[in-house]
Amino acid sequence: MKVPANPNALDIEYAIRDVVLPANRLERQGHRIIKLNIGDPNKYDFDTPRFIKDAVKEGLEEDLNGYAPSPGLPGLLSEIVRDENSRGNAIAEEDVTVTHGVTEALQLIFYASLSPGDEVLIPGPSYPPYITYCKMVGARPIPYGCIEDEGWIPDIDDIRRRMGPRTKAVCIINPNNPTGALYPESVIRSIGDLVAEQGKSFLISDEIYDLMSFSDPAPSTARVCPDVPTITMNGISKIYLAPGWRIGYLSIRDVDERLSEIRDGIERQARARLCVNSICQHAYARALSGPRDHISDTMSRLRRRRDLSFRMLNEIEGISVQNPGGAFYMFPRIDGMAQEGWNTDKEFVLDLLNEEKVLTVFGSGFGEEHGSGHFRIVILPTEEMLQEAFERMGNFMRRHTG
Amino acid sequence: MKVPANPNALDIEYAIRDVVLPANRLERQGHRIIKLNIGDPNKYDFDTPRFIKDAVKEGLEEDLNGYAPSPGLPGLLSEIVRDENSRGNAIAEEDVTVTHGVTEALQLIFYASLSPGDEVLIPGPSYPPYITYCKMVGARPIPYGCIEDEGWIPDIDDIRRRMGPRTKAVCIINPNNPTGALYPESVIRSIGDLVAEQGKSFLISDEIYDLMSFSDPAPSTARVCPDVPTITMNGISKIYLAPGWRIGYLSIRDVDERLSEIRDGIERQARARLCVNSICQHAYARALSGPRDHISDTMSRLRRRRDLSFRMLNEIEGISVQNPGGAFYMFPRIDGMAQEGWNTDKEFVLDLLNEEKVLTVFGSGFGEEHGSGHFRIVILPTEEMLQEAFERMGNFMRRHTG
Repeated sequence: MKVPANPNALDIEYAIRDVVLPANRLERQGHRIIKLNIGDPNKYDFDTPRFIKDAVKEGLEEDLNGYAPSPGLPGLLSEIVRDENSRGNAIAEEDVTVTHGVTEALQLIFYASLSPGDEVLIPGPSYPPYITYCKMVGARPIPYGCIEDEGWIPDIDDIRRRMGPRTKAVCIINPNNPTGALYPESVIRSIGDLVAEQGKSFLISDEIYDLMSFSDPAPSTARVCPDVPTITMNGISKIYLAPGWRIGYLSIRDVDERLSEIRDGIERQARARLCVNSICQHAYARALSGPRDHISDTMSRLRRRRDLSFRMLNEIEGISVQNPGGAFYMFPRIDGMAQEGWNTDKEFVLDLLNEEKVLTVFGSGFGEEHGSGHFRIVILPTEEMLQEAFERMGNFMRRHTG
Repeated sequence: MKVPANPNALDIEYAIRDVVLPANRLERQGHRIIKLNIGDPNKYDFDTPRFIKDAVKEGLEEDLNGYAPSPGLPGLLSEIVRDENSRGNAIAEEDVTVTHGVTEALQLIFYASLSPGDEVLIPGPSYPPYITYCKMVGARPIPYGCIEDEGWIPDIDDIRRRMGPRTKAVCIINPNNPTGALYPESVIRSIGDLVAEQGKSFLISDEIYDLMSFSDPAPSTARVCPDVPTITMNGISKIYLAPGWRIGYLSIRDVDERLSEIRDGIERQARARLCVNSICQHAYARALSGPRDHISDTMSRLRRRRDLSFRMLNEIEGISVQNPGGAFYMFPRIDGMAQEGWNTDKEFVLDLLNEEKVLTVFGSGFGEEHGSGHFRIVILPTEEMLQEAFERMGNFMRRHTG
């Protein structure tokens, strides 16, 4: 007899890694796949800066190999506070918990705050763990619309419509994954106003791509909305080019101690899981206080890749895409998908993979309501590789729509 | 208005780290504390072996800084399989998930398998995360008795009595934390028989201290009970002396695909949280295939410390302790605690800390029913330091019971 599982666990989908299996099969058959699926700069021609790698070695030799304190290494906490303060987010060391990446930060926040029946507003489309960790505790993720024609900026009217008495938190991902949208301050302020008005919820702001902007860095939500309780998340993965190390953090900017219970629940969970990788915490402290030359270098390469992707994708008949303001994603639309014979965007993505050996992620994996009819790509590959991918995509579309 | 938390999160206790706050206060006042509270060898005179540290550097330079596959680095999976097979546990690579230490392994297993109302049998006393992660999903941890006078060996009759139709899993920690008990094969076989008889549950075997034995290594539960579905946990923290790196794993030894749903639930959660620290995974692969001289060195030092601790603790009037067979813990009893004026073992531990500056963990933190009236110590400090701790403890007891 089978031992039954927790149904919530079986409900977890992670489209970004789910498409990897068919791609691996093709590779085993000898095909070369152009991979536009995973947001991992180190898989392309980006590398962790030398001084950050050296800091790991320093941690090894300085005997940081034992357990770290549960909230994080003191030397890292102080650097996080300095960095957040410099962005206008008025937090102190006791407000920070270092985590196994932003995914664990989200898990700690959701598990600390959500009870069955609670609702969380998340961007539609949204990065999958927002849906996963919400459902795991029996709460409901409610996606709010973003206006595609305006570059996927959150639709304030839709957020207002979808907020209710059970809304516990409203999530912002800025710059956004999977759309690359960079939100203007006025939009963040408007979302904060709705949360303040409702009076019994808080903001969750995922700022892991904050310095990966093609114009000014993304603003700190906690600075823009100082009157709204806000939990900010960030980490070493993207800006400091070390995603495999799994170091992130959450910081709580509270108002009138409204989040004191949730803070307690987060800290209790953090103690139970002991700590986060100690030597890489040390390296993140060095990263935050070190030179930032690699960021402008990264962004100037990404800008060329974005410009090429934006132009070539929009030249393909049947595909249209918005110009992203930050991060390294684009979320193109498949125009007239049904007429061209694809029932779902997943079918489209699998056909593109099988016929042209280009791997993308189907849009509905980022939420059915707002993601379907789209797919996500990363603009991390070299211009040569991107060019080849879009040429293949063009051939594919001509064949199917011709 | 306060935003209410998830009550399950506020229910989390972690005694081992909870006693740290009053100790920190005393240290800030200038007191030197003898710390017998945390199972972290690297905080004492043990160090991560050189070849394992060097392997982290190798990982950094071999460009393993991007995301690893969710189940683990292929090079580590194969070493884990080789190692488990050599212990008689017949698993394959697809049965393994690498985790952020055993704590995350436990979390993945419990969240994949438990629904509200389900019951899990855990040793009494038990390592706190067993209680925490069980309660977080609304399931009930049911402690089973262990026979103190026989060295804290599980009480098979009590396990039989406490098993019921809602029992989903039975946990074994061998060698045990907090008692240091090393279970004979016959006891493991008897527990397996009860699980096989009930027919709808599985074994969870925490073997993180397996080679830390004062006689033969602890047996693989999955080898002893090949007819019972068993999930085994292990990691780099204790035997390879790198607890701060947070690398562990779980491996599923299934029977008739009874755990196929739970396996699926574990894998889905693992994908959602992306991966575990990539460079330290590489180092764990090297550790598993490398020389093991450091283990015999560690154990010969620990043996002297155990013998000294066993002798000195039992010489103290009002304290009695069993001789541990493995790990680096002892779980002494406070004889006649109430008569001597302590209402709880927590009061005892705080008095001992305040008066003699010796930090231990109160036994009820490992489960009220079986842990109260006891305290846990680690035998990791040098003999000189242990001797001083027990002399202070002797003075303390003479003063209070004299």
